[in-house]
Amino acid sequence: MKKEQIILGVDPGTNIMGFGIISIENKKASFIDMGCIVLNKIEDHSLKLKKIFDDTIALINRYHPDFLAIEAPFFGKNVQSMLKLGRAQGVVIAAALSREIPIHEYSPRKIKQSVTGKGSASKEQVASMLERLLNLTEMPAHFDATDALAVAMCHFMQNSTTTASKDAKTGYSSWASFIKNNEHRIK
Amino acid sequence: MKKEQIILGVDPGTNIMGFGIISIENKKASFIDMGCIVLNKIEDHSLKLKKIFDDTIALINRYHPDFLAIEAPFFGKNVQSMLKLGRAQGVVIAAALSREIPIHEYSPRKIKQSVTGKGSASKEQVASMLERLLNLTEMPAHFDATDALAVAMCHFMQNSTTTASKDAKTGYSSWASFIKNNEHRIK
Repeated sequence: MKKEQIILGVDPGTNIMGFGIISIENKKASFIDMGCIVLNKIEDHSLKLKKIFDDTIALINRYHPDFLAIEAPFFGKNVQSMLKLGRAQGVVIAAALSREIPIHEYSPRKIKQSVTGKGSASKEQVASMLERLLNLTEMPAHFDATDALAVAMCHFMQNSTTTASKDAKTGYSSWASFIKNNEHRIK
Repeated sequence: MKKEQIILGVDPGTNIMGFGIISIENKKASFIDMGCIVLNKIEDHSLKLKKIFDDTIALINRYHPDFLAIEAPFFGKNVQSMLKLGRAQGVVIAAALSREIPIHEYSPRKIKQSVTGKGSASKEQVASMLERLLNLTEMPAHFDATDALAVAMCHFMQNSTTTASKDAKTGYSSWASFIKNNEHRIK
Protein backbone atom coordinates (compact mmCIF):
# COMPACT_ATOMS: atom_id res chain seq x y z
CA MET A 1 0.00 0.00 0.00
CA LYS A 2 1.36 3.41 -0.86
CA LYS A 3 1.99 5.76 2.03
CA GLU A 4 -0.40 8.52 1.07
CA GLN A 5 -3.99 8.01 0.00
CA ILE A 6 -6.17 10.48 -1.83
CA ILE A 7 -9.94 10.71 -1.39
CA LEU A 8 -12.08 12.57 -3.89
CA GLY A 9 -15.42 13.59 -2.42
CA VAL A 10 -18.22 14.57 -4.78
CA ASP A 11 -21.64 16.07 -4.19
CA PRO A 12 -23.28 15.65 -7.58
CA GLY A 13 -26.10 17.96 -8.47
CA THR A 14 -27.72 19.10 -11.66
CA ASN A 15 -27.06 22.79 -10.96
CA ILE A 16 -23.79 22.76 -9.07
CA MET A 17 -21.44 19.84 -8.49
CA GLY A 18 -19.16 20.19 -5.48
CA PHE A 19 -15.83 18.45 -5.13
CA GLY A 20 -13.34 18.15 -2.29
CA ILE A 21 -10.00 16.38 -2.13
CA ILE A 22 -8.08 15.28 0.95
CA SER A 23 -4.96 13.23 1.41
CA ILE A 24 -4.45 10.72 4.22
CA GLU A 25 -0.99 10.12 5.57
CA ASN A 26 -0.17 8.46 8.88
CA LYS A 27 -3.89 8.34 9.61
CA LYS A 28 -4.10 12.12 9.38
CA ALA A 29 -6.26 13.95 6.83
CA SER A 30 -4.95 17.04 5.03
CA PHE A 31 -6.81 19.43 2.79
CA ILE A 32 -5.79 19.42 -0.87
CA ASP A 33 -8.48 21.22 -2.85
CA MET A 34 -12.18 21.95 -3.13
CA GLY A 35 -14.46 23.74 -5.52
CA CYS A 36 -17.63 23.81 -7.56
CA ILE A 37 -18.48 23.01 -11.12
CA VAL A 38 -21.26 25.34 -12.16
CA LEU A 39 -23.83 23.63 -14.37
CA ASN A 40 -26.89 25.83 -14.13
CA LYS A 41 -25.93 27.90 -17.14
CA ILE A 42 -25.95 24.81 -19.35
CA GLU A 43 -29.52 24.37 -20.51
CA ASP A 44 -29.13 21.11 -22.42
CA HIS A 45 -29.27 18.20 -20.00
CA SER A 46 -26.98 15.93 -22.03
CA LEU A 47 -24.34 18.68 -22.22
CA LYS A 48 -24.57 18.94 -18.44
CA LEU A 49 -23.88 15.22 -18.16
CA LYS A 50 -20.96 15.56 -20.56
CA LYS A 51 -19.50 18.38 -18.45
CA ILE A 52 -19.96 16.31 -15.26
CA PHE A 53 -18.20 13.36 -16.91
CA ASP A 54 -15.35 15.43 -18.40
CA ASP A 55 -14.76 17.40 -15.22
CA THR A 56 -14.80 14.27 -13.03
CA ILE A 57 -12.24 12.66 -15.36
CA ALA A 58 -10.17 15.88 -15.20
CA LEU A 59 -10.21 15.76 -11.37
CA ILE A 60 -9.17 12.08 -11.49
CA ASN A 61 -6.34 12.90 -13.91
CA ARG A 62 -5.18 15.76 -11.73
CA TYR A 63 -5.32 14.19 -8.26
CA HIS A 64 -5.18 10.41 -8.91
CA PRO A 65 -7.65 9.56 -6.13
CA ASP A 66 -7.59 6.11 -4.51
CA PHE A 67 -11.26 6.38 -3.60
CA LEU A 68 -14.32 8.23 -4.77
CA ALA A 69 -16.77 9.10 -2.01
CA ILE A 70 -20.14 10.33 -3.20
CA GLU A 71 -23.03 12.00 -1.41
CA ALA A 72 -26.08 10.03 -2.39
CA PRO A 73 -29.48 11.19 -1.22
CA PHE A 74 -32.05 8.50 -1.82
CA PHE A 75 -35.15 10.62 -1.52
CA GLY A 76 -36.28 13.79 -3.17
CA LYS A 77 -39.20 15.95 -4.07
CA ASN A 78 -40.36 14.55 -7.36
CA VAL A 79 -39.64 11.83 -9.91
CA GLN A 80 -38.41 14.27 -12.54
CA SER A 81 -35.72 15.78 -10.32
CA MET A 82 -34.73 12.35 -8.98
CA LEU A 83 -34.22 11.01 -12.50
CA LYS A 84 -31.92 13.94 -13.28
CA LEU A 85 -30.07 13.55 -9.99
CA GLY A 86 -29.73 9.81 -10.63
CA ARG A 87 -28.22 10.53 -14.02
CA ALA A 88 -25.71 12.98 -12.55
CA GLN A 89 -24.76 10.41 -9.89
CA GLY A 90 -24.55 7.65 -12.51
CA VAL A 91 -22.20 9.70 -14.69
CA VAL A 92 -19.86 10.46 -11.76
CA ILE A 93 -19.92 6.79 -10.70
CA ALA A 94 -19.16 5.67 -14.26
CA ALA A 95 -16.25 8.12 -14.55
CA ALA A 96 -14.72 6.44 -11.48
CA LEU A 97 -15.59 2.95 -12.80
CA SER A 98 -13.84 3.80 -16.08
CA ARG A 99 -10.64 4.33 -14.08
CA GLU A 100 -11.25 1.40 -11.72
CA ILE A 101 -11.49 3.66 -8.68
CA PRO A 102 -13.52 2.16 -5.81
CA ILE A 103 -16.73 4.06 -5.06
CA HIS A 104 -18.32 4.56 -1.67
CA GLU A 105 -21.68 6.19 -1.09
CA TYR A 106 -22.82 8.02 1.99
CA SER A 107 -26.20 9.50 2.81
CA PRO A 108 -26.34 13.22 3.69
CA ARG A 109 -27.30 12.28 7.24
CA LYS A 110 -24.35 9.91 7.64
CA ILE A 111 -21.95 12.57 6.36
CA LYS A 112 -23.22 15.24 8.76
CA GLN A 113 -23.17 12.73 11.60
CA SER A 114 -19.56 11.74 10.87
CA VAL A 115 -18.25 15.28 10.55
CA THR A 116 -20.20 17.16 13.20
CA GLY A 117 -21.66 14.45 15.41
CA LYS A 118 -25.17 15.53 14.46
CA GLY A 119 -27.09 14.01 11.53
CA SER A 120 -29.24 17.11 11.25
CA ALA A 121 -26.34 19.61 11.28
CA SER A 122 -26.63 22.68 9.03
CA LYS A 123 -24.32 23.31 6.10
CA GLU A 124 -22.75 26.13 8.12
CA GLN A 125 -22.00 23.74 10.99
CA VAL A 126 -20.46 21.21 8.58
CA ALA A 127 -18.29 23.93 6.98
CA SER A 128 -17.25 25.27 10.37
CA MET A 129 -16.22 21.80 11.63
CA LEU A 130 -14.22 21.17 8.43
CA GLU A 131 -12.48 24.52 8.91
CA ARG A 132 -11.25 23.27 12.30
CA LEU A 133 -10.49 19.69 11.28
CA LEU A 134 -8.55 20.61 8.15
CA ASN A 135 -7.21 24.02 9.20
CA LEU A 136 -8.89 25.68 6.23
CA THR A 137 -7.71 29.23 5.71
CA GLU A 138 -10.27 30.19 3.09
CA MET A 139 -13.89 29.21 2.79
CA PRO A 140 -15.50 28.70 -0.62
CA ALA A 141 -18.36 30.75 -2.00
CA HIS A 142 -20.73 27.78 -2.15
CA PHE A 143 -21.54 25.18 0.49
CA ASP A 144 -21.50 22.58 -2.31
CA ALA A 145 -17.69 22.59 -2.06
CA THR A 146 -17.63 22.09 1.73
CA ASP A 147 -20.39 19.48 1.40
CA ALA A 148 -18.17 17.54 -1.01
CA LEU A 149 -15.17 17.93 1.27
CA ALA A 150 -17.36 16.54 4.06
CA VAL A 151 -18.08 13.42 1.96
CA ALA A 152 -14.34 12.82 1.59
CA MET A 153 -13.83 13.34 5.34
CA CYS A 154 -16.76 11.01 6.07
CA HIS A 155 -15.09 8.28 4.02
CA PHE A 156 -11.82 8.81 5.87
CA MET A 157 -13.56 8.62 9.25
CA GLN A 158 -15.54 5.52 8.32
CA ASN A 159 -12.39 3.75 7.25
CA SER A 160 -9.77 5.02 9.63
CA THR A 161 -8.89 1.86 11.56
CA THR A 162 -7.80 3.86 14.60
CA THR A 163 -11.06 5.74 14.71
CA ALA A 164 -13.04 2.61 13.95
CA SER A 165 -11.47 0.57 16.72
CA LYS A 166 -11.81 3.47 19.14
CA ASP A 167 -15.44 3.75 18.09
CA ALA A 168 -15.99 0.10 18.71
CA LYS A 169 -14.39 0.21 22.11
CA THR A 170 -15.68 3.46 23.46
CA GLY A 171 -18.84 4.09 21.53
CA TYR A 172 -17.68 7.36 20.00
CA SER A 173 -20.55 8.40 17.82
CA SER A 174 -18.62 10.75 15.62
CA TRP A 175 -15.37 12.36 14.68
CA ALA A 176 -16.41 15.43 16.66
CA SER A 177 -16.69 13.49 19.89
CA PHE A 178 -13.51 11.60 19.00
CA ILE A 179 -11.69 14.92 18.68
CA LYS A 180 -13.15 16.14 21.93
CA ASN A 181 -11.78 13.12 23.73
CA ASN A 182 -8.51 12.83 21.85
CA GLU A 183 -7.29 16.33 21.23
CA HIS A 184 -3.72 15.23 21.94
CA ARG A 185 -3.95 12.89 18.95
CA ILE A 186 -5.08 15.53 16.48
CA LYS A 187 -2.30 17.67 15.11
CA MET B 1 -18.04 9.66 -43.86
CA LYS B 2 -17.65 5.91 -43.80
CA LYS B 3 -20.08 3.91 -45.91
CA GLU B 4 -21.67 1.89 -43.15
CA GLN B 5 -22.95 3.29 -39.89
CA ILE B 6 -23.69 1.33 -36.75
CA ILE B 7 -26.39 2.29 -34.25
CA LEU B 8 -26.43 0.81 -30.76
CA GLY B 9 -29.86 1.03 -29.16
CA VAL B 10 -30.13 0.59 -25.41
CA ASP B 11 -33.11 0.26 -23.10
CA PRO B 12 -31.52 0.69 -19.69
CA GLY B 13 -33.29 -0.80 -16.73
CA THR B 14 -32.29 -1.82 -13.26
CA ASN B 15 -33.48 -5.41 -13.71
CA ILE B 16 -32.85 -6.08 -17.39
CA MET B 17 -30.96 -3.94 -19.89
CA GLY B 18 -31.89 -4.55 -23.51
CA PHE B 19 -29.58 -3.82 -26.42
CA GLY B 20 -30.04 -3.87 -30.18
CA ILE B 21 -27.59 -3.15 -32.98
CA ILE B 22 -28.34 -2.24 -36.58
CA SER B 23 -26.15 -1.15 -39.45
CA ILE B 24 -27.13 1.46 -41.99
CA GLU B 25 -25.82 1.19 -45.51
CA ASN B 26 -27.25 2.99 -48.53
CA LYS B 27 -30.04 4.31 -46.30
CA LYS B 28 -31.11 0.77 -45.51
CA ALA B 29 -31.13 -0.71 -42.02
CA SER B 30 -29.92 -4.26 -41.36
CA PHE B 31 -30.14 -6.28 -38.20
CA ILE B 32 -26.82 -7.08 -36.49
CA ASP B 33 -27.57 -8.28 -32.97
CA MET B 34 -29.84 -7.91 -29.98
CA GLY B 35 -30.05 -9.28 -26.48
CA CYS B 36 -30.48 -8.69 -22.79
CA ILE B 37 -28.17 -8.18 -19.89
CA VAL B 38 -29.81 -9.70 -16.85
CA LEU B 39 -29.25 -7.63 -13.71
CA ASN B 40 -31.95 -8.80 -11.34
CA LYS B 41 -29.77 -11.46 -9.76
CA ILE B 42 -27.26 -8.81 -8.67
CA GLU B 43 -28.46 -7.49 -5.34
CA ASP B 44 -25.86 -4.78 -4.78
CA HIS B 45 -26.85 -1.66 -6.68
CA SER B 46 -23.28 -0.47 -7.28
CA LEU B 47 -22.34 -3.88 -8.73
CA LYS B 48 -25.33 -3.53 -11.06
CA LEU B 49 -24.00 -0.17 -12.22
CA LYS B 50 -20.57 -1.69 -12.72
CA LYS B 51 -22.05 -4.50 -14.85
CA ILE B 52 -24.06 -1.97 -16.90
CA PHE B 53 -20.88 0.07 -17.48
CA ASP B 54 -18.67 -2.92 -18.31
CA ASP B 55 -21.22 -4.52 -20.61
CA THR B 56 -21.92 -1.26 -22.45
CA ILE B 57 -18.17 -0.81 -22.97
CA ALA B 58 -17.97 -4.45 -24.18
CA LEU B 59 -20.78 -3.77 -26.72
CA ILE B 60 -18.95 -0.63 -27.88
CA ASN B 61 -15.69 -2.57 -28.23
CA ARG B 62 -17.42 -5.32 -30.17
CA TYR B 63 -19.58 -3.30 -32.58
CA HIS B 64 -17.89 0.13 -32.75
CA PRO B 65 -21.18 2.04 -32.90
CA ASP B 66 -21.30 5.50 -34.48
CA PHE B 67 -24.30 6.45 -32.35
CA LEU B 68 -25.86 5.44 -29.09
CA ALA B 69 -29.64 5.72 -29.02
CA ILE B 70 -31.21 5.40 -25.61
CA GLU B 71 -34.78 4.90 -24.47
CA ALA B 72 -35.36 7.53 -21.83
CA PRO B 73 -38.64 7.58 -19.96
CA PHE B 74 -38.99 10.81 -18.04
CA PHE B 75 -41.73 9.78 -15.68
CA GLY B 76 -42.17 6.88 -13.32
CA LYS B 77 -43.93 5.59 -10.29
CA ASN B 78 -41.79 6.80 -7.42
CA VAL B 79 -38.68 8.81 -6.61
CA GLN B 80 -36.73 5.77 -5.44
CA SER B 81 -37.15 3.85 -8.70
CA MET B 82 -36.52 6.98 -10.78
CA LEU B 83 -33.23 7.62 -8.99
CA LYS B 84 -32.12 4.06 -9.76
CA LEU B 85 -33.28 4.33 -13.36
CA GLY B 86 -31.50 7.68 -13.68
CA ARG B 87 -28.29 6.12 -12.43
CA ALA B 88 -28.57 3.25 -14.91
CA GLN B 89 -29.18 5.77 -17.72
CA GLY B 90 -26.31 7.95 -16.49
CA VAL B 91 -23.89 5.03 -16.52
CA VAL B 92 -24.82 4.02 -20.08
CA ILE B 93 -24.54 7.65 -21.23
CA ALA B 94 -21.13 7.99 -19.56
CA ALA B 95 -19.87 4.77 -21.17
CA ALA B 96 -20.68 6.33 -24.57
CA LEU B 97 -19.21 9.71 -23.51
CA SER B 98 -15.98 7.93 -22.48
CA ARG B 99 -15.64 6.76 -26.08
CA GLU B 100 -16.87 10.03 -27.62
CA ILE B 101 -19.91 8.40 -29.16
CA PRO B 102 -22.81 10.81 -29.78
CA ILE B 103 -25.89 10.06 -27.68
CA HIS B 104 -29.49 10.51 -28.71
CA GLU B 105 -32.46 10.05 -26.42
CA TYR B 106 -35.96 9.09 -27.38
CA SER B 107 -39.07 8.81 -25.26
CA PRO B 108 -40.91 5.45 -25.26
CA ARG B 109 -43.82 7.12 -27.05
CA LYS B 110 -41.59 8.55 -29.78
CA ILE B 111 -39.98 5.15 -30.34
CA LYS B 112 -43.30 3.33 -30.67
CA GLN B 113 -44.61 6.09 -32.92
CA SER B 114 -41.56 5.86 -35.21
CA VAL B 115 -41.58 2.10 -35.51
CA THR B 116 -45.29 1.26 -35.59
CA GLY B 117 -46.97 4.56 -36.36
CA LYS B 118 -48.76 4.43 -33.00
CA GLY B 119 -47.35 6.02 -29.84
CA SER B 120 -49.40 3.68 -27.68
CA ALA B 121 -48.36 0.48 -29.49
CA SER B 122 -47.82 -2.64 -27.39
CA LYS B 123 -44.43 -4.31 -27.04
CA GLU B 124 -45.81 -7.17 -29.19
CA GLN B 125 -46.75 -4.72 -31.95
CA VAL B 126 -43.28 -3.12 -31.81
CA ALA B 127 -41.60 -6.56 -31.98
CA SER B 128 -43.82 -7.65 -34.84
CA MET B 129 -43.07 -4.50 -36.87
CA LEU B 130 -39.31 -4.93 -36.29
CA GLU B 131 -39.62 -8.55 -37.47
CA ARG B 132 -40.98 -7.24 -40.78
CA LEU B 133 -38.68 -4.24 -41.13
CA LEU B 134 -35.47 -6.13 -40.35
CA ASN B 135 -36.44 -9.61 -41.58
CA LEU B 136 -35.79 -11.07 -38.15
CA THR B 137 -35.76 -14.86 -38.21
CA GLU B 138 -35.71 -15.40 -34.47
CA MET B 139 -37.37 -13.46 -31.73
CA PRO B 140 -35.74 -12.96 -28.33
CA ALA B 141 -37.09 -14.26 -25.05
CA HIS B 142 -37.55 -10.77 -23.60
CA PHE B 143 -39.19 -7.71 -25.11
CA ASP B 144 -36.35 -5.65 -23.59
CA ALA B 145 -34.21 -6.76 -26.56
CA THR B 146 -36.79 -5.76 -29.20
CA ASP B 147 -37.46 -2.54 -27.29
CA ALA B 148 -33.76 -1.69 -27.56
CA LEU B 149 -33.70 -2.62 -31.23
CA ALA B 150 -36.68 -0.28 -31.66
CA VAL B 151 -34.65 2.59 -30.14
CA ALA B 152 -31.91 2.00 -32.71
CA MET B 153 -34.49 1.90 -35.52
CA CYS B 154 -36.13 5.06 -34.16
CA HIS B 155 -32.78 6.86 -34.38
CA PHE B 156 -32.30 5.66 -37.94
CA MET B 157 -35.78 6.82 -38.92
CA GLN B 158 -35.39 10.19 -37.25
CA ASN B 159 -32.16 10.81 -39.08
CA SER B 160 -32.67 9.18 -42.43
CA THR B 161 -32.62 12.17 -44.76
CA THR B 162 -34.80 10.41 -47.33
CA THR B 163 -37.44 9.67 -44.76
CA ALA B 164 -37.14 13.10 -43.21
CA SER B 165 -37.60 14.97 -46.45
CA LYS B 166 -40.47 12.69 -47.43
CA ASP B 167 -41.98 13.34 -44.02
CA ALA B 168 -41.70 17.05 -44.48
CA LYS B 169 -43.27 16.98 -47.90
CA THR B 170 -46.02 14.49 -47.41
CA GLY B 171 -46.66 14.51 -43.71
CA TYR B 172 -45.83 10.84 -43.18
CA SER B 173 -46.29 10.36 -39.51
CA SER B 174 -44.18 7.26 -39.20
CA TRP B 175 -41.99 4.68 -40.79
CA ALA B 176 -44.96 2.34 -40.93
CA SER B 177 -46.94 4.71 -43.10
CA PHE B 178 -43.80 5.47 -45.09
CA ILE B 179 -43.45 1.75 -45.83
CA LYS B 180 -47.08 1.49 -46.77
CA ASN B 181 -46.68 4.26 -49.30
CA ASN B 182 -43.21 3.35 -50.52
CA GLU B 183 -43.05 -0.41 -50.63
CA HIS B 184 -41.06 -0.25 -53.87
CA ARG B 185 -38.31 1.60 -52.03
CA ILE B 186 -37.93 -0.95 -49.22
CA LYS B 187 -35.78 -3.92 -50.16
